[in-house]
Amino acid sequence: MNQSVGQREVENRILKLLTEGDLKQLGSVIQDVPADDIVLIIERLGAKQQAVVFRLLHKDEALDVFEALDPLVQSDLVRGLRDGEVAEIFEGLDPDDRVWLLDELPATLAPKLLHGLSERERRLTSVVLGYPQDSVGRRMTPEYVTTRMDYTVADTMARLRDRIDDAETIYMLPVLDDARHIAGVVSLRDLIAAEPDAIIASIMSEAQSVEATEDAEHAARKLTEAGFVAIPVVDRERRLVGLLTFDDAMRIIEHEESEDSARQGGVEPLRRPYFATPIMQLVRSRVVWLLVLAVGATLTVQVLDVFEGTLAEVTVLALFVPLLIGTGGNTGNQAATTVTRALALGDVKARDIARVLGREARVGAMLGLLLGTLGFLIAGFVYSWQIGAVIGLTLVAICTVAATIGGIMPLVARWVKVDPAVFSNPFISTFVDASGLIIYFLIARAILGL
Amino acid sequence: MNQSVGQREVENRILKLLTEGDLKQLGSVIQDVPADDIVLIIERLGAKQQAVVFRLLHKDEALDVFEALDPLVQSDLVRGLRDGEVAEIFEGLDPDDRVWLLDELPATLAPKLLHGLSERERRLTSVVLGYPQDSVGRRMTPEYVTTRMDYTVADTMARLRDRIDDAETIYMLPVLDDARHIAGVVSLRDLIAAEPDAIIASIMSEAQSVEATEDAEHAARKLTEAGFVAIPVVDRERRLVGLLTFDDAMRIIEHEESEDSARQGGVEPLRRPYFATPIMQLVRSRVVWLLVLAVGATLTVQVLDVFEGTLAEVTVLALFVPLLIGTGGNTGNQAATTVTRALALGDVKARDIARVLGREARVGAMLGLLLGTLGFLIAGFVYSWQIGAVIGLTLVAICTVAATIGGIMPLVARWVKVDPAVFSNPFISTFVDASGLIIYFLIARAILGL
Repeated sequence: MNQSVGQREVENRILKLLTEGDLKQLGSVIQDVPADDIVLIIERLGAKQQAVVFRLLHKDEALDVFEALDPLVQSDLVRGLRDGEVAEIFEGLDPDDRVWLLDELPATLAPKLLHGLSERERRLTSVVLGYPQDSVGRRMTPEYVTTRMDYTVADTMARLRDRIDDAETIYMLPVLDDARHIAGVVSLRDLIAAEPDAIIASIMSEAQSVEATEDAEHAARKLTEAGFVAIPVVDRERRLVGLLTFDDAMRIIEHEESEDSARQGGVEPLRRPYFATPIMQLVRSRVVWLLVLAVGATLTVQVLDVFEGTLAEVTVLALFVPLLIGTGGNTGNQAATTVTRALALGDVKARDIARVLGREARVGAMLGLLLGTLGFLIAGFVYSWQIGAVIGLTLVAICTVAATIGGIMPLVARWVKVDPAVFSNPFISTFVDASGLIIYFLIARAILGL
Repeated sequence: MNQSVGQREVENRILKLLTEGDLKQLGSVIQDVPADDIVLIIERLGAKQQAVVFRLLHKDEALDVFEALDPLVQSDLVRGLRDGEVAEIFEGLDPDDRVWLLDELPATLAPKLLHGLSERERRLTSVVLGYPQDSVGRRMTPEYVTTRMDYTVADTMARLRDRIDDAETIYMLPVLDDARHIAGVVSLRDLIAAEPDAIIASIMSEAQSVEATEDAEHAARKLTEAGFVAIPVVDRERRLVGLLTFDDAMRIIEHEESEDSARQGGVEPLRRPYFATPIMQLVRSRVVWLLVLAVGATLTVQVLDVFEGTLAEVTVLALFVPLLIGTGGNTGNQAATTVTRALALGDVKARDIARVLGREARVGAMLGLLLGTLGFLIAGFVYSWQIGAVIGLTLVAICTVAATIGGIMPLVARWVKVDPAVFSNPFISTFVDASGLIIYFLIARAILGL
């Protein structure tokens, strides 16, 4: 469904030739495959095979393919290439793509590569490298075309034609005043629609901009919300330092979405495509979380240990443990998922904590009442009305607590400046499990008079 | 962090005036707030307050704001406006945005609104409406500018200036042959860089395109992967029917991400911003899943019921139930999260099931060996070496089974044409819980000789 039959056939053929080691035949097959398809195929190969396919590409196609690959796949490839090949590719990259790759390379390799750059490229790269990790400054392009308020449309078009080869985008031009402050923006569409002798000041629009040190995801979402082709990046004094383009914004958001999705499931983000990730890397991305969660879960062992007497007396209570803590965990997950997503989209802010708490407590209580009534009826009917009451009341309490905790956890994370997704769903479940058990046994003791 | 201080102050002021009911003052405050900020503020209000703020906007700003709102918020607003107001807004929308709204409106309202449209707008809208839900045809714009292979650059630019007001984008122009087949594309950048008398055929590039009936998300990802401003949408005969633009692609992806994220947490997608969603809607988005999961969890009650004899004999076994099934659930979640994401990004395809199964089984076994060894040592030391052996072996088995099931579930979903995220993490946990308990008690009986 996701791939045309032709593409699939080509991929199978390439895989076959790779295992047979028939590089000559492979080379000639690859020549006919469009660069975009090669990218998709490479990202589905293991690390060693990736390098083999990449080295068979024509020089000019190789750069196109390289640019489109994930930065971590790029860095894997770089290690398998000769110094001269690497230097050539590195010089051919846009400054922002270059920085993306540098972030993934071993610290020893980066200075060597930077040193090999031409004067101009090194200067542009160091502008971008000067901004902190995760800031939009590090993802912007320093190559753009500007105009001025007193220029005419014709002047601007001439200027634009002059610099067209260097600029990453020409569809949005920042308008500057004498001190390089941003006075407005003009889109290429406005330029084309205007009379050639019109003055820029008369056709420009107000500039929305982002600060270079701002969080890259926040800036990217601002751009996509508004549907801009690009957004100017400025310093503290509103002087232009670069442009964030829509394609880089989409790339930033995709990375963030992958990270959030991974953390929501209690995994460290892979950052490489699935099949390009070695098995041991998959294990590593999961084992730390699993261990943390297992250690957290020993809390439940201790809680049960405390109540072992109660359990031994009324064994039937043990039967409901997985159901009750499972429901608590699910309710907590639901709330955490909803709020984490709303935070990512900017619908909810860290300061909304009281408002969220109020909503989630009410939602949790309502869910608890619904499930609790059902639980009371079923358990009461099958076992006894006393057991039914224990189960019903426990469900009300657990759902309320779980939704409240699950809902505010992501906001607490934001307050203490941690990625909200780090308090992932499994993390919340584990926490809710222990408190759920305590609630359960306290209610059971009270009702059953133990 | 996510919002400037100024914006926050404005929002607080608007909230204050809303509760005070001072509409006159509110109206004058709102005039000075940029449209993009109004959008953000409206999306954080309850449904009634949204309508109040919206009606205070100037006519021309109202349309800008309306266009940028979520379709469900739009449909909430529409119900609160007078027929005349609605008709005016509806006429002012782009055809694709109009269809997005129509999808959310009650079936009785849609024909009335369509009927009120001008001839031209109705025709354009019905082109888009003709394609199936979730297809890219329904998200494309039917308003674009085309050129032909034998036109010159100057011809094309003149044509483009002529139609600039109607086209949704002018940054990418499809090049057509006599039968409206797509022969290539030319970017506005290429046009500007070329000599005015150059022939389009000499500067156009190969057209990547998507079929109108193709899945909208797939098409949107194709566009963003390649970083295109727009991608032509064609029919089965490769005749041009529309363009998918980058901003619509980003919107599609954001919707899909929200849906995946929600399902991963066992919630139905909200589709409205968090604060704009009534409490009862939040309850409804969660209760069905919770009930399904709770019913699933009664399986664990039954399994425990079967093994109640074993439990009564060795009560200490009950202590580890939450820890063991929790770990199984977490391992399953991790695998499901990773594979669901890889599927969404296209890194993994439905046909890769054997490859994924092999990888996940190995990852699960390795995780199981690590955790199992630890479990054996700790439980063995604290309780007894026999109990340690039960816990250790159970962990190895549970982790292997859970990772394998969790990893292939999303692929099975794709095979049976269900959203892979529907087999959400809580769903997998619940399933893994029951099988985990069976494994646990079978191993316990074997080792403890019960």
